[in-house]
Amino acid sequence: MAVTIKDIAQKSGVSLTTVSRVLNSSGYVKEETRKKVLSAIKELNYTPSAIARSLSKNKTNTIGVVIPEINNEFYGEIIKGISEVADEYNLNMILCNTDNNIEKEVKALKLLKEQRIEGIIITPTSVEDDFNSEYLITIEQLGIPIVLVDGHVKYADFSGAFVDNIKGAYDSTDALIKAGHRKIGIITGRMNSDAAQNRLKGYKKALALNDIPFDERYVFKGDYSEKLAYKLTKEMLSMENRPTAVFASSNRMTIGCIKAITEEGLKVPDDMALIGFDRIDILNSLGMNISFVDGPTIELGTIAMKILIENIQNEEYFDTKKITIAPKLILKGSERFIKK
Amino acid sequence: MAVTIKDIAQKSGVSLTTVSRVLNSSGYVKEETRKKVLSAIKELNYTPSAIARSLSKNKTNTIGVVIPEINNEFYGEIIKGISEVADEYNLNMILCNTDNNIEKEVKALKLLKEQRIEGIIITPTSVEDDFNSEYLITIEQLGIPIVLVDGHVKYADFSGAFVDNIKGAYDSTDALIKAGHRKIGIITGRMNSDAAQNRLKGYKKALALNDIPFDERYVFKGDYSEKLAYKLTKEMLSMENRPTAVFASSNRMTIGCIKAITEEGLKVPDDMALIGFDRIDILNSLGMNISFVDGPTIELGTIAMKILIENIQNEEYFDTKKITIAPKLILKGSERFIKK
Repeated sequence: MAVTIKDIAQKSGVSLTTVSRVLNSSGYVKEETRKKVLSAIKELNYTPSAIARSLSKNKTNTIGVVIPEINNEFYGEIIKGISEVADEYNLNMILCNTDNNIEKEVKALKLLKEQRIEGIIITPTSVEDDFNSEYLITIEQLGIPIVLVDGHVKYADFSGAFVDNIKGAYDSTDALIKAGHRKIGIITGRMNSDAAQNRLKGYKKALALNDIPFDERYVFKGDYSEKLAYKLTKEMLSMENRPTAVFASSNRMTIGCIKAITEEGLKVPDDMALIGFDRIDILNSLGMNISFVDGPTIELGTIAMKILIENIQNEEYFDTKKITIAPKLILKGSERFIKK
Repeated sequence: MAVTIKDIAQKSGVSLTTVSRVLNSSGYVKEETRKKVLSAIKELNYTPSAIARSLSKNKTNTIGVVIPEINNEFYGEIIKGISEVADEYNLNMILCNTDNNIEKEVKALKLLKEQRIEGIIITPTSVEDDFNSEYLITIEQLGIPIVLVDGHVKYADFSGAFVDNIKGAYDSTDALIKAGHRKIGIITGRMNSDAAQNRLKGYKKALALNDIPFDERYVFKGDYSEKLAYKLTKEMLSMENRPTAVFASSNRMTIGCIKAITEEGLKVPDDMALIGFDRIDILNSLGMNISFVDGPTIELGTIAMKILIENIQNEEYFDTKKITIAPKLILKGSERFIKK
């Protein structure tokens, strides 16, 4: 009876996929494992069939990347980080843009599941939805590793690269309090997103640890868009006993916030102090001294991709690996408390 | 003898691929053509073989997108436009980021060629290099349609969606001249790029038509980066008989330009008038009134993708289709001539 790759897999104690990788020299096999497989092939005197070869050649060397906002520089940088590592390993990247829409996200995952991809990196648009979580579990059960970036899903425990959002928001709020502010507004992200929830947590934590009572009226529920942040900031500015400082939970919302303040003829920080989440390079370039939470965005992408590659390589068994990066608070003066 | 799809193709007067698409209901066949094929199948009493089916099922429903700077919002918007249309047609998108590097671009094209993709949309990093042009020709000869976005290649004549770069630069320079400027600097893009060459052409054309002699000293050769534009603007500001106005050939370079002017304690337009190519949303939001050339960026993506889909559908024969969009000059006051 002809020797099959099943026999080689058994003899060398690795999976079928690993054997097929060695046969096709298509990457991601530890040198040690490769040697084991090659010696098994020699011992068993195996000759691969054309069909087996052609099947293995169908491997796509492709990963899927699912992100919510392709035209936001934050995700542009994450993708840049991912693609730097993917290039090194000659992996293609299928990109799916979900526009922060859970139906589009699930549709993207369906499409990716049908492809013969090697793994998926995803920033889930919602931590509260069941669909994406179920889908991701199904996909991982098919043997396709999943790595999350800057966001979790409801039921499952996946590997991922994360920003410590609680710390970033805590540090920002604490810096505003240290500067003398007691009435601090927050513009949150879309509240079904993991990042938005944790940024609100960090804000609340800083208030609590500084014995400042939490005031629901100072919480403005945004959706990560500049437009709504602009509208909410206008509301905030017109309220009685208004905050003297605001923490904006994302780059786009920081811009909306500045726009509203400026349009009212007011100044940062003289009339309203401000700290924003995420670096906005242009603000720095323009010499606008807005304090911000600096998450290493490109690194989020490179780390996620490195975890994915380890995961693809060690396909027999892989521990869930989570790397959380503490962002840095960069103070530029916009947090100051100006007595009027 | 068994009926093959070749017979069906002959009978219905379409290509093999079209027949296989109809057989597999995998999209992009005109209703009329589909009916023709179906009636040929019926007449010839054809039963598809399992092998043919499985081969056809290997169709990836995937297109390739090759762009030079994923973390530039300009390309973020183009990709958003592409993905809006791709989503409608359930097409995946393999994204390759070339970092403005011709080797990376050719490598990306090699990778894509090996995939069974349906077509490629590309912003070529260089119009002067032979490699990418040869590669693209090879790929199209394999039956994979190519659509260019905002840039050409050396030898070949491909379909594409373009911005009228000459007009954008001409209008900008002309507006500066109309405002009273005679000494106008230009910061160019990377000069091996098509867009950069045409923007310089538009600048020269406006000078010529207004009888202003072209002065080589006022041409500052940038590379699309903020950093070099910043450095060049500093040089420009320190030169004798310096320009009173500058035209910056891209969004990133406009920022570098503003940064240098501001750092020197100077103001736009009081000390240096400025018009930049590409919309920069943040500048508008921040109420910085910088005049700019507004190219419909998302539309560039949607148009390119629509051309690609037409091209995939009409695989028998397809004319080269080029759509050039005239950008609009939006004047906000930064072009004014202030007598000192």
